[in-house]
Amino acid sequence: MKDLVETISIDPDFVERCVLELASFGAVEETGVSRTVYSPEWIGATRCFGQWCADAGLAVRHDAVGNVWGRLEGSQGGKAIVSGSHIDSQTPGGRYDGALGAISAFIAIKALKEQFGTPLRTLEAVAFCEEESSRFPNANFWGSRAISGRIRDEDLTEVRAFSGESIEEAMREAGLDPLRFREARRDDIAAFIELHIEQGPILEQAGLPVAIVDAITGIRHYHASVRGAANHAGAFPMEIRRDPMAGFAEIASGVIDTAHRLGRPAVTTVGRVLVSPNFPGIIPGQVDFTVDARHPDPVARRRLYAMHEGLMLEVAARRGLDIDWNVMIDHEPTLSDPQLLGHLAKAAASQKVPVMTMASGAAHDAQQMAAITKVAMIFVRSRDGRSHTPEEFSSVEDMVSGIKVLAAALHGLAYR
Amino acid sequence: MKDLVETISIDPDFVERCVLELASFGAVEETGVSRTVYSPEWIGATRCFGQWCADAGLAVRHDAVGNVWGRLEGSQGGKAIVSGSHIDSQTPGGRYDGALGAISAFIAIKALKEQFGTPLRTLEAVAFCEEESSRFPNANFWGSRAISGRIRDEDLTEVRAFSGESIEEAMREAGLDPLRFREARRDDIAAFIELHIEQGPILEQAGLPVAIVDAITGIRHYHASVRGAANHAGAFPMEIRRDPMAGFAEIASGVIDTAHRLGRPAVTTVGRVLVSPNFPGIIPGQVDFTVDARHPDPVARRRLYAMHEGLMLEVAARRGLDIDWNVMIDHEPTLSDPQLLGHLAKAAASQKVPVMTMASGAAHDAQQMAAITKVAMIFVRSRDGRSHTPEEFSSVEDMVSGIKVLAAALHGLAYR
Repeated sequence: MKDLVETISIDPDFVERCVLELASFGAVEETGVSRTVYSPEWIGATRCFGQWCADAGLAVRHDAVGNVWGRLEGSQGGKAIVSGSHIDSQTPGGRYDGALGAISAFIAIKALKEQFGTPLRTLEAVAFCEEESSRFPNANFWGSRAISGRIRDEDLTEVRAFSGESIEEAMREAGLDPLRFREARRDDIAAFIELHIEQGPILEQAGLPVAIVDAITGIRHYHASVRGAANHAGAFPMEIRRDPMAGFAEIASGVIDTAHRLGRPAVTTVGRVLVSPNFPGIIPGQVDFTVDARHPDPVARRRLYAMHEGLMLEVAARRGLDIDWNVMIDHEPTLSDPQLLGHLAKAAASQKVPVMTMASGAAHDAQQMAAITKVAMIFVRSRDGRSHTPEEFSSVEDMVSGIKVLAAALHGLAYR
Repeated sequence: MKDLVETISIDPDFVERCVLELASFGAVEETGVSRTVYSPEWIGATRCFGQWCADAGLAVRHDAVGNVWGRLEGSQGGKAIVSGSHIDSQTPGGRYDGALGAISAFIAIKALKEQFGTPLRTLEAVAFCEEESSRFPNANFWGSRAISGRIRDEDLTEVRAFSGESIEEAMREAGLDPLRFREARRDDIAAFIELHIEQGPILEQAGLPVAIVDAITGIRHYHASVRGAANHAGAFPMEIRRDPMAGFAEIASGVIDTAHRLGRPAVTTVGRVLVSPNFPGIIPGQVDFTVDARHPDPVARRRLYAMHEGLMLEVAARRGLDIDWNVMIDHEPTLSDPQLLGHLAKAAASQKVPVMTMASGAAHDAQQMAAITKVAMIFVRSRDGRSHTPEEFSSVEDMVSGIKVLAAALHGLAYR
């Protein structure tokens, strides 16, 4: 078949060396990494990535917000085909979340250059500066937002770290001029493919190394507050209480059961609860909680949210409680580009990598990139589905399989 | 009838003046009081109480742990008939919780002395130093424990304030010699009657000013921990999660519903919840929570606890979660002495105060005193059932009614 390329050779030892070298910046104990954006460890990692690209003969550029680009110019010029992921981590996270996507993009382009020479169309590997919100809770994809032109002036001061400093201050400390953030904007990208660890157990359960991601789920975060009357735990008979804990517990059970009943890929999580006053012997006056609800299908998503909202209102009304909520995050699903999905499927077949198709339940930089170009993603199997922990692990064999699929897809896009 | 005494006269203005004067020590804004044991405000209040007693011709004694006693010697000597309550408060609490019981004992004995002269048997009013655990979370009725001989040597250093100091250090700062705590022990008390605000809405709903308390409820505090597997809120399908929040919510709903279904006087409260890691986008790994369950009937109480424990085990097992708990507080119910109940009923009838009988859902010093003497309690109506807040309020009329019942009962016990 004309579309198939020769097997692309990826050196497992080199992949492992790159993972370990990048993980040395911000290393925590045996396998952990704590590398927040604009920290000294992060600066070290961006220099390392830049040096790799330079050594491979790619043109290196550190942009205005600290994204690092390695560029292999195509003979025909035009818009660039880009791959990459973020280089920051949770505190601590592991070696693979984000980092593997930046490493894979670099290794794939280096391999294509070595094995196939100069491409027709330009290829770029990118290490995004920030995705985890692990230093700035509202940074919200700082790197890919800069590239897609979604950062506002006021974000420079309003994006604040857990420890208080603004992202503007942090950028200056890292040697960047925050006022130039607009220069990171790109309008010359033809396609973006992000490789990432799965962060879930679906590939492991299916016995497959790699998935092609056809959608990134829609996410909504409700920050809800249910209020009753705080009173003495002993002196108030049950039937006249207005106990927000009773209401909260029924709501939490209900929203979790709703997603369970709807089945994959619907998920709903109650991850955060704050009780006031939070004493054993006092009926609470208020319970604040979050509901994280996700579905990649735009219609099913709206139905899931409507069920959750209906339940919250019904329980509160029936129990004589006050309830309100704010929607703090509300990301529409991002559908992968059908052409890119086709390239990925052919690439997997050409490299003899068995794959499945799934939606991503997690958010990714690709969602931001979708504002300026067509996107798709590749997932690599995660052991036990773990992520955001030093325990996260993907085998070298699986990483090589993922990188082969990526490289073959980039070959299909840039070399013919 | 021989048992009836003349109406005892209690001056409403004097009651109100005493409440306001004692509330001035540690006053917070309009109606709040913040007066923790051994604080300067507390020292002021104990001196005030002692001065009142001295002015009324009672023999005043500050004991080894700071309880204040006002004694009216009976002509026949023998064991003393004691009334009182605690003089410390929540931070902030109101003017009535505890304070009203000490004030009422003083006013009742002063009135009896003025209106009936020297009693046959000795009467004493007591202001206990500590009941609220508002400075030392494990003080656990410090005043009445000292009197009943339930303080251990190690408590002097193991009872520690929220701010770190030991109760031994606090006692020294208040001018007391902590090593003499055993001198506060009493074995010469014939009966103890505690007047207290209800702290609940039952009297208000019944339209009555005063209740006679036939039991203090049994209380158990479970500190439970349910553990599953923390994972990414998006990438883990519902049906393979081990989500401790789902288990906790089902347990909280279940234990609350169980007490509700059993009906008065069973109560169960989930007042404290701590989630780990407590982020919106992460399935929790652990939920710690308390279950406060109370019943004044020894048999029904055991059944309530068995139902709660059975539910916790069943939910955890069914959901593949780990659960364990510690019982941090476990007070047996305290039954009021039938003879004292009879005295109180006659006293209420003689003073034409309409009363009902109820169990106390809250813990009280009377439980500790029950270890060394027979006990009973009187409740005074609380507006909206509120307590442990500056908003707590009892009307002067209701307080006078309660004090009349107390005074008439003390008359019955000490004058005939």
